[in-house]
Order: sequence, then C-alpha cells, then structure tokens
Amino acid sequence: MPVNLTAPDSKSLLPVAGVQLGIAEANIRKAARKDLLVIRLDDGARVAGVFTQNRFCAAPVVVTREHLAASPAIRALVVNTGNANAGTGAAGLEHARQTCADLARLLGCDAKQILPFSTGVIMEPLPVERIAAGLPACIADLKADNWLNAANAIMTTDTLPKAASTKCRVGSADVTLTGIAKGAGMIHPNMATMLGFVATDARVSPALVKATVAHAAERSFNCITVDGDTSTNDSFMLMATGQAKMDEIVDAASTEYAAFRDAVTEVAMRLAQAIVRDGEGATKFITVRVEGGRSEDESRRIGFAIAHSPLVKTAFFASDPNLGRILAAIGYAGVGDLDVEKIDLYLDDVHVARNGGRNPEYREADGQRVMKKSEIMVRVALNRGNSAATLWTCDLSHDYVSINADYRS
Amino acid sequence: MPVNLTAPDSKSLLPVAGVQLGIAEANIRKAARKDLLVIRLDDGARVAGVFTQNRFCAAPVVVTREHLAASPAIRALVVNTGNANAGTGAAGLEHARQTCADLARLLGCDAKQILPFSTGVIMEPLPVERIAAGLPACIADLKADNWLNAANAIMTTDTLPKAASTKCRVGSADVTLTGIAKGAGMIHPNMATMLGFVATDARVSPALVKATVAHAAERSFNCITVDGDTSTNDSFMLMATGQAKMDEIVDAASTEYAAFRDAVTEVAMRLAQAIVRDGEGATKFITVRVEGGRSEDESRRIGFAIAHSPLVKTAFFASDPNLGRILAAIGYAGVGDLDVEKIDLYLDDVHVARNGGRNPEYREADGQRVMKKSEIMVRVALNRGNSAATLWTCDLSHDYVSINADYRS
Repeated sequence: MPVNLTAPDSKSLLPVAGVQLGIAEANIRKAARKDLLVIRLDDGARVAGVFTQNRFCAAPVVVTREHLAASPAIRALVVNTGNANAGTGAAGLEHARQTCADLARLLGCDAKQILPFSTGVIMEPLPVERIAAGLPACIADLKADNWLNAANAIMTTDTLPKAASTKCRVGSADVTLTGIAKGAGMIHPNMATMLGFVATDARVSPALVKATVAHAAERSFNCITVDGDTSTNDSFMLMATGQAKMDEIVDAASTEYAAFRDAVTEVAMRLAQAIVRDGEGATKFITVRVEGGRSEDESRRIGFAIAHSPLVKTAFFASDPNLGRILAAIGYAGVGDLDVEKIDLYLDDVHVARNGGRNPEYREADGQRVMKKSEIMVRVALNRGNSAATLWTCDLSHDYVSINADYRS
Repeated sequence: MPVNLTAPDSKSLLPVAGVQLGIAEANIRKAARKDLLVIRLDDGARVAGVFTQNRFCAAPVVVTREHLAASPAIRALVVNTGNANAGTGAAGLEHARQTCADLARLLGCDAKQILPFSTGVIMEPLPVERIAAGLPACIADLKADNWLNAANAIMTTDTLPKAASTKCRVGSADVTLTGIAKGAGMIHPNMATMLGFVATDARVSPALVKATVAHAAERSFNCITVDGDTSTNDSFMLMATGQAKMDEIVDAASTEYAAFRDAVTEVAMRLAQAIVRDGEGATKFITVRVEGGRSEDESRRIGFAIAHSPLVKTAFFASDPNLGRILAAIGYAGVGDLDVEKIDLYLDDVHVARNGGRNPEYREADGQRVMKKSEIMVRVALNRGNSAATLWTCDLSHDYVSINADYRS
C-alpha cells in the first residue's frame, strides 16, 4: 500500500500547449490493459533526456540516444509497458527501430523524429506487431488533457499513477509544467528513474533544456532508491514546446532560467518521491539526510548505504528502533577516513547516538514513538565538513518479496 | 530452513592438542541459553586474525587488535553472544577491557593475553557483570572435546551450529584442524565473517600464521554474502598451538606450508559455505562464478552485484527464471568499459544468454528445471580476460524479512 500517496486528480494535471497524448490496449503482455502511450509534440519542441548508466542498457535507450543525436526535431515519444526490450541483443534494436518507423509512417515524419521507451520484463522479445497494431488507436485518442490516462498506461508494478503539474511565473510569462513517471521496483536510478516524462510550454534554448534535465535528475530521481537495483531502461525526458508567450530563455545565469529550472526540479522531485511512496511493498517513507560531510559524494555514499541496507529497511518495516544497524551501515559505506566518534544520529527530533555511541539520554520509548510513524527522517551529522545530501527510500516488507517472487506469474 | 546443512556430529569434531573450550549460561540477553565461551590455549600458541573493515568496528575488535599487537602470547579468547558491544563508544571499550581483566585474573595471566569477541544486538551496553559472573562456569567446563557445544554457544539467528574438522598430512606429520563459525544475517564479510575460529596443532611461524589467516579469509569468508550488510564485529581467528610433532614451518614456498595453508582454507571455506546455507530465510544455495574477467577485482564486483541484488534473490526464492535480472545486475556492477555483447550466462548447464542477449536456443522450461533445485550455479562468461571469482550466496525470502523484523523481540 503506498505511503501517503493518492491518485492525482485529472483536473489538477494541466494540459501543456503543444503536447497531445494518446493511449491504447495493445495486449503486449496482458489483455485488456492500457499498455501503449504516444506523446505527440508540435513542431518546434525541444527534447532532452538523461538515461540509465547500466551497461546492459535497453534497446529503446540506445535508439532514443541515437535519435536525439541525429535529429533536433523530435515529434513523438512512444512508450510501451509489459516488456522492457532489454537484454534482447540485435533483434531488440531492430524492434525498437521498427516501432519508430511504424509510428513515423502514421504521423508523416521521419523515424528519427520518434523516441521509443519500454518497461517491463527483461530478456523477452518485444511483440512489435502488437505494438504496430495498437498505434492507430493511440493516434485516434490523442488529446491534451490525457495526462492521467497516460500515467496509468505506463504503470507496471505501480499501484497508483504518478503525475504532477504546476504553473509558475518565468519573467513576465506564465509557464505550465506537467509530468508523469512510473516505477516501483528495480529503483536505484543512476541518471534517471525507470521512466519519467515532463513537458512544459516554456521557450528555452536547446542547451538549457539539456542542462535542466540533468540538474533536475540529480536532485530528484538520482536521490531515491527502493531496492538498489539500477534498471536497464531508466529514462527521464524533458520536453519544452516553446508555445508560451515569452522570450526564449538562453542565459543560464538569468533569474528567468533559475525560476524555470527550479520549477522543473520541483515537479521531478514530486514524481521521484511518488515512486518511493509507491515502492514495492512500502509501508514507510524514509528521508535520509546526511550533513556535515566533506563532500556531497561522501554524504550521498553514506546516505545510500543506509537507504540500501536490508537490515535497516526491515527494522523500519517492523517499527523496531534497532538503530545500531544504521551506525553499521554508515561504517561500511566506504568512507575510509571516517571518524565515527564524531557522528550524531537523529530519528526525527530524537537524538539517538552521540559521538559515535548511544546517547546516554536516548530512551528506547522515544525511538519507538518515531518508528511507528509512516514518514520518518533519519538525520546523520558527520561533523567533518559542510556538504550534505538528502535521499528518499522506503522500508523492506514481506510484500516486496511477494511482489518480486510473483512478478511474472 | 538451512539448505542442505545438518548439525555436525560431535565425534567428527577432532580435539586440537593445546586447546580447551568451556561454555556457560550468562543470561546476557536471554535466560537459559549458552551464551558465553572461553577458548583457552596452552602456552606457546600463535594467534592471528583478520577483522571487519566497517569504520564502526566494535569495541572487542579494537581491543583484540590492541592485544594482538601488544602480546605474542595469547592465552585465551572469550566470546559472548546476545550483545555486539558495537556503537557503544568509550564505555564499550572499557567493558571489553574489563572482561579481559576478569578472565585474566581467573586464568592467572595478563589481560593483554586475552582476546574478546562479541556478537548480537548493536548499540546496547554490554552487561559486563553478568559476563564476569559466568566466567567461572566456563572455566569449570574447559575440555578439549567441547567444539560442538562451543559452536552452539556462539549462535545468534543461526538455526544450526557450524563446525568443520579435518586431519591432513603436512610433511611427515599428521596435523589436526577444527573450527567453528557463526553468522546468518548482516553477512557480507569484508576481511572475515561475523565470527570464525579455527585451531590447529600445527607448528607454524608467527608470520605464516598471519599470512594463512588472510589467505584463507580471502577465499572463504570474503566470498560470501547473505544480505550485503558488513558487520561491525567480523573476526576470523587462526590459532596454532604447535603441539604436533613436526618441525616448525617457516618457509612460505615449501610444500609443507602449501599443504597447511590449503587445509586451513578448506576448513574456512566449509564454515563460510555453512553460513550461507544457514543464511537468514535461505531456501537455496547459489554459487556465482564469473569467468573471463580482466581482473579478479572486476570478476568479484560483478559477482557481488548479482549476489546482492534483491530482485535476483527473490527470483531464486520463487524458482522463477526471470534471468534478465541477472543481466541487469551485471550491467550496473560498475565495470565502466564492459562490452555486454560478449557476455554469456549459464544456469548450471543451461546456456541462457549469448552475446549479451537471450540465447535463441534457450527454453524457459530448461531455466525452470534448474531454478527448482536447492543448489544452483550461476556462471557468467565475460570473455575479456583470464581472471575469475567464485562467490556463494542464498535467496531472499519472506523469512528473511520476518527474522529481521522480529530480531529483537
């Protein structure tokens, strides 16, 4: 059951000028399930993305990168669930290209103007004919106020659709941002989440669209983990249609750019946190904040050691303040010169460990009180520098095992 | 339930001349439970160890290292379960030293001739008075044929005692080796397992005792993982009493040394594998073999990525050949220049993936057949060099979550 997450209200998801979405049931893995999405962009849109660092990156990721490099004029994205088209070798690349060609024919553009995305089971052949057969229904369904249906169509083990929308003032213009994401397991993004798409009508230079997507990923999808497994298909895309009435943002140092960049980051963070709240089997939403590090890198490394530890995560599931497990995780995070005698550990407002050992004033009842909450902040003070990192994760429950043991059945 | 592991037969555990073991119920955490062990060594024994790399290393690890450095003449080891004396700051160090002093008084030696070991809950004060009160009973119980009781006394979440014993020919002498180990969770040793103790009557130079314990750890306890959590208390000790009728082994290049070293390594490997077979919630014993790497380091890194992946481990639990998850883990292992198109993946004799993609001849039924077994070999051929690594792990089941959610209750 997701942690303090509800399905977004369709009306709260603002249409973005220049973007239409259409979905269909293509029977890719299961019958009677919306599993195919086309996002069509008006001419002039600028698109950039960040992708998985997994060496086994999926065929659609390879093709998306190729097409982004070959064509600045992206006209559509096509997303299927039920099959990741990963670990599928040369045939997988052929299948991803075939899907682009099929959609290009229907839209009257070049195959290189299409970006393909897949998510689902790894190492099974993509059923390209079923996708081709489903594309006309997607096109017939294209409309601007279709974001919630799109969020539903890209779900796999997600229990709820994930979407976020905002309006913000950029200079003298009102700009709209709306995004969707999916992912619940195999979540330890290394560049992006499994799949995330954010669209905006802002007019932004291609270079700044690219810079923004990296900036936002670093502060959102790259700060979450469910199970520490980095997917083969992680992709986070930013689409800027340029249809808002405004001057083009070209200066990275301008206040307009800062407003835009922060708005994109805010939407990405909401989507990333929604993924953790809907993490497979999650019953708690945990924020891990590491402060006083010598570098952001070491702060992140310690944060992820805590956030990945199966022992820490099961303790949260059990609401058991077995907090020495957090100290153990800090200790094996790989920060060689860490002076553990300087470390403080807090659970929300409770000061659990001081100078690397149990705080004499710490009472188990206080730890217990915090552990019972559904939202918990773990705060570690390294007391050796001025860098910090904030990450989000969930607990490890029986349901995580059940979901992943039964995934393909 | 442990995987193909039974309790050792007491008669199979050979006494080692110069070693006596005594146990007691000290009520450290739970009543009516053997939780305290003293291993007494005759004068002249040589002792060496390898220890956790966790920066939060436990107080007894700190004190054991100090005493090994200060005194070549170790006379006893004292081991308690129920409390790890880790994350306990200055008081923890004081407690570990106090326990050594208490035992030294009873044995008529110096406190620096005692090595302390603890395992159990982290960040709770060690009940030193109860340990002191239990030591006389340990001493009254000291005997040479007490290895099985000792293996029982050091268990925490272990379901079965772990011990191994062998006789081997070293030059013209018969040498005996007997060892015990404990550990079932928080198992990803980085230098040694949680606790392992191997004794031998061989006469070996102090330098070679030290070299042997590192050699054996590298090929045994450092090749296993249950949950990827490196303990604060990992210690693996080798004790050589020198009471066998033989010349002292002093030459690292001699055949005698090779025979001795291999025998120690074999005992350590049996103990390490027993820990995995009894891994928390384990239902399968998995051997991960990575071949054709450019270095042992990259082979180990890829092997551990597979062995740590919660998704791979839950697939084994479910007997579901969802083998793309193994490819995904290989891909995120952090080997930057890995050419995935060269990779072959085998499950026992079944050739699952070829050239980085699904082997066209692979049939799901074949994968299913292997996945149902209780002992499975995952073999990855990187086809880029001549290095290899072999690791052992277990699956991730509901019981792992239950055991760790309820650990302290």
